[in-house]
Amino acid sequence: MRAYSGEKLCGKCFTESIEDKVRATIAKNNMFKPDDKIMVAVSGGKDSVTLLHILAKVEREFPKASLFAVTVDEGIRGYRDEAIKFAAENCRKLGIEHVLTSFKELFDIQLDELVKVLRERDKGESDVLSPCAYCGVLRRRALNVAARRAKADKLALAHNLDDEVQTILLNIMHGDASRIARVKPVLAEKHPMFVSRVKPFRELLEKEIAFNAYLEKIEFQSVPCPYASTALRSDIRIMLNRMEEKHAGTKFTILKSIEKIQPALEMRLKETLLQECKVCGEPTVKEICKPCQMLQELGVH
Amino acid sequence: MRAYSGEKLCGKCFTESIEDKVRATIAKNNMFKPDDKIMVAVSGGKDSVTLLHILAKVEREFPKASLFAVTVDEGIRGYRDEAIKFAAENCRKLGIEHVLTSFKELFDIQLDELVKVLRERDKGESDVLSPCAYCGVLRRRALNVAARRAKADKLALAHNLDDEVQTILLNIMHGDASRIARVKPVLAEKHPMFVSRVKPFRELLEKEIAFNAYLEKIEFQSVPCPYASTALRSDIRIMLNRMEEKHAGTKFTILKSIEKIQPALEMRLKETLLQECKVCGEPTVKEICKPCQMLQELGVH
Repeated sequence: MRAYSGEKLCGKCFTESIEDKVRATIAKNNMFKPDDKIMVAVSGGKDSVTLLHILAKVEREFPKASLFAVTVDEGIRGYRDEAIKFAAENCRKLGIEHVLTSFKELFDIQLDELVKVLRERDKGESDVLSPCAYCGVLRRRALNVAARRAKADKLALAHNLDDEVQTILLNIMHGDASRIARVKPVLAEKHPMFVSRVKPFRELLEKEIAFNAYLEKIEFQSVPCPYASTALRSDIRIMLNRMEEKHAGTKFTILKSIEKIQPALEMRLKETLLQECKVCGEPTVKEICKPCQMLQELGVH
Repeated sequence: MRAYSGEKLCGKCFTESIEDKVRATIAKNNMFKPDDKIMVAVSGGKDSVTLLHILAKVEREFPKASLFAVTVDEGIRGYRDEAIKFAAENCRKLGIEHVLTSFKELFDIQLDELVKVLRERDKGESDVLSPCAYCGVLRRRALNVAARRAKADKLALAHNLDDEVQTILLNIMHGDASRIARVKPVLAEKHPMFVSRVKPFRELLEKEIAFNAYLEKIEFQSVPCPYASTALRSDIRIMLNRMEEKHAGTKFTILKSIEKIQPALEMRLKETLLQECKVCGEPTVKEICKPCQMLQELGVH
């Protein structure tokens, strides 16, 4: 049963309702054009593998569109290597091209090595810039580079409703509420090197995706990342789940609530146009892009 | 010890640090002019009684300024009548004039009666518009009327950091994020009938005020209101206290984070100017003001 709507559905109807919701999210946000080349970011986890399955189904209705998957190998031994197998196996089953890229190839460092440098520097002092903060920045860059190289028109991400709302609260609690302007269904930038990002799962609860994956017998990696932050995001996740349980619909209400103020916040951000990083040439808001800045600060580059 | 700053202070220094913080909040937000007539809203509870004590001290430094207290009697038997005694007793000790106003006098209905009407209508169905929602709207109106009648220049409220941050998250979780534009240290409106509201305690934690009241042996009513909502605000309060305990400084960071986006949000609100309510003549953004609308909907007026 869906607590927020009170609907009771059988397995088949549930799966259809999920797919319809994704179609509706795509349509109302104009996420795709009929002839788009879509790159799906597939980590091998539940959300991204399910996104690949659903987009493969949706894409069949648009003969001029095409789809491929990319997996970023961050270099996390005993974790990502496993996940890549799940990603590859799902692509094989669906007959979808699977591209691999890696931190090693792009930044000449694996995440395992970067974490060693980080821990040496911080000696457990700070949990503000966890490995996740670095990994996130580098992964977003890796995905943009992969999408551009493959001449993809869109980069599809499996961020779900839980992710989006956590990010909103995390931004507010980190003291940077203006960043909530960027938690959007479609993130486009006026720069030819930036590939637009779309989030077809943005209005799906994490548990809806999990239940759908179970019903559809989708195979995915379920082990959490060994570096997964136990810090603020995790506390926010627990708190939001508690609130959702007591007040069904809270997560969706927060998303819609923030959507209402985003236009006002965006007007302020619009002034900052993207330029090319003086070190690597990638699109960025500052003189030196965040990945280059992070790697320089760590003395890696 | 203050967890967020790591300071360890003796009782005397703690009290002085609290008073200095209030002075700093007043100064940086230009809350008062040297010759202001200030009305303090005193419910009789810990926060408002402490505010009266501290403002009485601060005011002594400004011989041209004057101070008086007002208590709104909402008509909650066995609760407010007790609180009024604490408010009156503290005013007497401090030699401050104490004015009483009431829902009965202004709206011809006591809160106890209004709750009966509400419960009869809703039959426990909805917890969205709790008694608190009605009481809050009517109390704000009552305070504005009292301040205007007494020709006060400013209305000082004892909202603390916890209150402000709870309200911010409550607005977001209620689907009305644009209302966070109004959670400000000084709320002024361009209308001669609206008395500006200031919040000198806005950067003080609830527990700092409680500890200060204990040190200063301030007497106040500590019984909670019998209608106090057990709904969303209470859950948010618990959640924020948990977050603050694990990540000291969270509440302050949220406040500062939201302050950064408020200018962008305010620009949108500025378009709506206050007009006079067609029923009661009080300043409002709509044709009929919220208090009149609420009372009409309940069939009370």
